Amino acid sequence: KRSYSITLLPGDGIGPEVISVAKDVLVLAGSVEGITFEFREMLLGGAALDATGVPMPDETLSVSKQSDAVLLGAIGGYKWDNNEKHLKPETGLLQIRSGLQVFANLRPATVFPQLVDASTLKREVAEGVDLMVVRELTGGIYFGKPRGFRTDENGEEAGFNTEIYSQHEIDRIARLAFETARKRRGKLCSVDKANVLEASMLWRKIVTELAQEYPDVELSHMYVDNAAMQLIRYPKQFDTILTNNIFGDILSDEASMITGSIGMLPSASIGASGPGLFEPIHGSAPDIAGQDKANPFATVLSAAMLLKYGLGEERAAERIEKAVLDTLNRGFRTADIYSAGTKLVGCKQIGEEILKSV
Amino acid sequence: KRSYSITLLPGDGIGPEVISVAKDVLVLAGSVEGITFEFREMLLGGAALDATGVPMPDETLSVSKQSDAVLLGAIGGYKWDNNEKHLKPETGLLQIRSGLQVFANLRPATVFPQLVDASTLKREVAEGVDLMVVRELTGGIYFGKPRGFRTDENGEEAGFNTEIYSQHEIDRIARLAFETARKRRGKLCSVDKANVLEASMLWRKIVTELAQEYPDVELSHMYVDNAAMQLIRYPKQFDTILTNNIFGDILSDEASMITGSIGMLPSASIGASGPGLFEPIHGSAPDIAGQDKANPFATVLSAAMLLKYGLGEERAAERIEKAVLDTLNRGFRTADIYSAGTKLVGCKQIGEEILKSV
Ligand SMILES: CC(C)[C@H](C(=O)O)[C@@H](O)C(=O)O
Ligand SMILES: CC(C)[C@H](C(=O)O)[C@@H](O)C(=O)O
Repeated sequence: KRSYSITLLPGDGIGPEVISVAKDVLVLAGSVEGITFEFREMLLGGAALDATGVPMPDETLSVSKQSDAVLLGAIGGYKWDNNEKHLKPETGLLQIRSGLQVFANLRPATVFPQLVDASTLKREVAEGVDLMVVRELTGGIYFGKPRGFRTDENGEEAGFNTEIYSQHEIDRIARLAFETARKRRGKLCSVDKANVLEASMLWRKIVTELAQEYPDVELSHMYVDNAAMQLIRYPKQFDTILTNNIFGDILSDEASMITGSIGMLPSASIGASGPGLFEPIHGSAPDIAGQDKANPFATVLSAAMLLKYGLGEERAAERIEKAVLDTLNRGFRTADIYSAGTKLVGCKQIGEEILKSV
Repeated sequence: KRSYSITLLPGDGIGPEVISVAKDVLVLAGSVEGITFEFREMLLGGAALDATGVPMPDETLSVSKQSDAVLLGAIGGYKWDNNEKHLKPETGLLQIRSGLQVFANLRPATVFPQLVDASTLKREVAEGVDLMVVRELTGGIYFGKPRGFRTDENGEEAGFNTEIYSQHEIDRIARLAFETARKRRGKLCSVDKANVLEASMLWRKIVTELAQEYPDVELSHMYVDNAAMQLIRYPKQFDTILTNNIFGDILSDEASMITGSIGMLPSASIGASGPGLFEPIHGSAPDIAGQDKANPFATVLSAAMLLKYGLGEERAAERIEKAVLDTLNRGFRTADIYSAGTKLVGCKQIGEEILKSV
């Protein structure tokens, strides 16, 4: 019997509710496939700030590192919005990404046929969209130094950050993107701003060179401003998109919105070795927290990504994905994806329905 | 009789064709309103590279500076795509922006009722969108230093850029954005990444402080990843958007695409004093250059912005805007905005039809 240790980071807002559902689904899907889990729940984000004074306690990182995979709910809330940077929930998220060295963030944007009308894009444009954004996650302007504030001789203040990428940082994320494209439809579009930024010029050079090792993958390059347009104009042109940390932050959110169902989308953050970090792409939705209104599908699908990308348990992952589709087909919806003719239920009941379908 | 000197920078690809139309329209609308123009045509971009070896000859800048306003067609083309940075057409564009110190780029994204079905967004989402992006244009990561490449002790290369904003740079663009919002519907949304970047934290602080001087303007803040989503989810929530150079590059292109008619959208780049730079937001479209297929509406509307923002000639500007709407109402279309039931004509004929309507 295969056994894995999983760190759960429920976080803030609706985080605990969706994590609770995903945990039950993991346990059941695992048991059917002969897998057992040992869970440890740790603090991150606002929950950690309130309990310990820091957004990512050392213990959270060390327990996470020792486990086989980490499943995160969501972090943040109005309460901590005006905190200083080192006391923001978001800082805890950046710290755990960096601490686990999960340099690759995989963010699928898939239009579920059952939910295509939720997109603000016309049906014929949204239908069939199935793309994957591979975002660099532990480098670039998010972490680059020097950064901070300075005052010049006239007393004028400035704020500054450094966008920087080294060869090995580009190489490892690009390889992972080529591998990802190879397992999908074999098309990779690398997005940069190489007509202006030196960091992007090196990016483009290294990605172009690597392409020789992946002759079966069709590589193209696109400027980030054009990519922001093309995602709206004709999203089906994309299979796998490779980009840096900040452009990936923007484009992956844009791509998720074209699907019309942010509450459905998971993500995986993985490194060269060590546990991966899996989380829904939606936020902590403090306004509906504790009301059993949250949509747990994205977290359940993140648990599926955990099985597939984190543990190599493809069969259990597929079992969960099928259960999600089955639950949608049976008409169950939370408020955010509800439409006339479907059944509006709460977070817990969605969980129970998924369990029935596992 | 009022008289102005205008520098024309036709540039590359379809640039000369659309500039020629816009010039004729300027002359006629001006003459009706008692304005005369003196034009000088100068080189920029690929055209300048081929003729002089640099993308922005000194003479282009000095003549532009001495004129009352600058009207640009488009720059760039496959031919120069692999040039080194200092020999790229785009570098010429950055140099003239910087040389003219036009720190504010105003980019309206307006859905023309006649063209609403060209948007890939659903009619009810796209209809009535009328927003203005105020993008900082001469600072931030586009121009920040240090920038370049470096090799560490192990021989590993890195590319880097600096995102930097000082108080006065933020102050002047924010004031202009507040003034712009005041003349529109009184709503300003400042877009940044203040949960991660120090440059954005200072940005948010200064914009927030300035709001006290504009009590009639309703200010909000939004993270750039969320803004990329909200533009698709519900674009009508926006009136005026204020943002930095790189975020503005991405978001203004995204915003233009939601209108579905990039060939219709103008832009104005203005500074504290001196001539402004006016240009369509579309590119040089080398594939259709010289075939009388280009859509000149955006350049004609840029000429209207030139009159309004550059010369303070509101009446002549409105005359041109009305002529454009009238030409659309009479059913004339270039290929990029053609739909069944309208009249497909070339660039020159669109020009003639606009002249009839002036
Ligand atoms: C919360 C924030 C720091 C984070 C990011 O910018 O990476 C979020 O937007 C994301 O994409 O996961
Ligand atoms: C051509 C390029 C340098 C330019 C920019 O990035 O500013 C363009 O995309 C624009 O928005 O005018």
